[in-house]
Order: sequence, then structure tokens, then C-alpha cells
Amino acid sequence: MGDVTLTVCTTCRRADVDPEATRPGSILLAALRETGLPEGVKVRGVECLSACTRGCSMVLSGGDKRWTYVYGDLNPDEHVDDILAGAAAYAATDDGLVPWRARPVIFRKQSIARIPPVDSPTQE
Amino acid sequence: MGDVTLTVCTTCRRADVDPEATRPGSILLAALRETGLPEGVKVRGVECLSACTRGCSMVLSGGDKRWTYVYGDLNPDEHVDDILAGAAAYAATDDGLVPWRARPVIFRKQSIARIPPVDSPTQE
Repeated sequence: MGDVTLTVCTTCRRADVDPEATRPGSILLAALRETGLPEGVKVRGVECLSACTRGCSMVLSGGDKRWTYVYGDLNPDEHVDDILAGAAAYAATDDGLVPWRARPVIFRKQSIARIPPVDSPTQE
Repeated sequence: MGDVTLTVCTTCRRADVDPEATRPGSILLAALRETGLPEGVKVRGVECLSACTRGCSMVLSGGDKRWTYVYGDLNPDEHVDDILAGAAAYAATDDGLVPWRARPVIFRKQSIARIPPVDSPTQE
């Protein structure tokens, strides 16, 4: 367990955000750091997750044995507590599969994609 | 190099596909296997990538040092050759970053998200 990373896109923005203003992803990244990360969770910024129409966006990942999730439509003013709670629940699992009802609503409704672990069994 | 995986969702479908018919992702998975995979590339199916509105969908990944890509709106009747060419170009890189013009058009236009390598440097 542990070794979980939140990767926040610091470039993307919603259409209603002034392009000259600090990008929501940068604000989200700073807010996550200030609020205090759960044990075993770190955060990093990247310049583009190619999910630009769903910004701001973020990846939740945790090593070779966990599913990886991509989330979008995040709002740094509203979602910091839910993101941290969801990351803590994810970090407490071995495979990244948090029971549906235990996930924050934003993780249930704003998932863009999920990616299976490297060694996940294949289905025909 | 090598160690590249195409992960195809075998469950999702476009809205215009009969829900009782074989899912496009299953057809795509079989077609990729039949056509012959580039060296260093393997393929697997999974039951859901949570990219259901963009099906059929697929992940292109290759170890801890490469960027991971999620693609959607794939058509098993039209895109097999492009997928295999794009996967071969990706497998020939160390970091997964194929020059823009060398990517198949479907990889340029139908990217849902990309995820940086685990050890990618952070941006503030």
C-alpha cells in the first residue's frame, strides 16, 4: 500500500475561465498541498494530460498492482476534500478498487477512464 | 524498448451499435491478433475502461518509463492498421512520445487522455 500519486494537469481550463488567469489545475495543485495529503499519497503537476475538454483533470495512480483512474471537470474551489478522501481510500487498497459507495461522488461521476494494472488478467 | 501493451475494452459500444451484437471491442481485439502484432507489442482485453461514452476504447502503455495513452471512438473495421502502426512507433521509443507528425491521425485526434511516466519530473 502507499506509493499513490495524484497527477494534476496545470495547463487545462474550463471554457468559462479567463485564459490569462492562473489555471485551475495550478490552484488545485497548491490547494491539495496546503490541505495536507493523506499518508502514502504524493502530488505532482504536469503540463498536459490531453484531457483538455474535461479540465481541470487529474490522474490517480499507485504502482503496478493498482488500477489507474483519470478524472475530469474538477473544481479547485469545491473538490479538494473529496479528492483527498478518495485518494486516501484508494491508498488503503491493494488494487485501487474502492467499493462504489465508498467513493466520493466526484470519483463516481467524473471518471474519464480507468486503466487496469499491468498484470491484470485478460478477457477474451 | 518493447514491453508494450494494447488494452482493449471488450464491453463498450457506440450508441448506434446493437446491444445484442458482438461488441466492437471484441471484434477489434480479434482483428489486432489476426493481423499480427508488431515486435514487442502484446494485446489484451478488459471488461471496462470506464470510457463508455467514447467506445470502443483502448489503452496504449509500455512500462514505467513511457507515457500511457487512452484512445476512443475506435472502429474495428477502419482502424486496425493505424493502431498497429501507431503501436509500433510507440514501441520504438523509450518514453512513448512519438513525434506528432509520425502518429496516425486517429492517435492525434482520438486521444482521451495521456498519463506521464511514474518518474516524470513535476511542474509547479
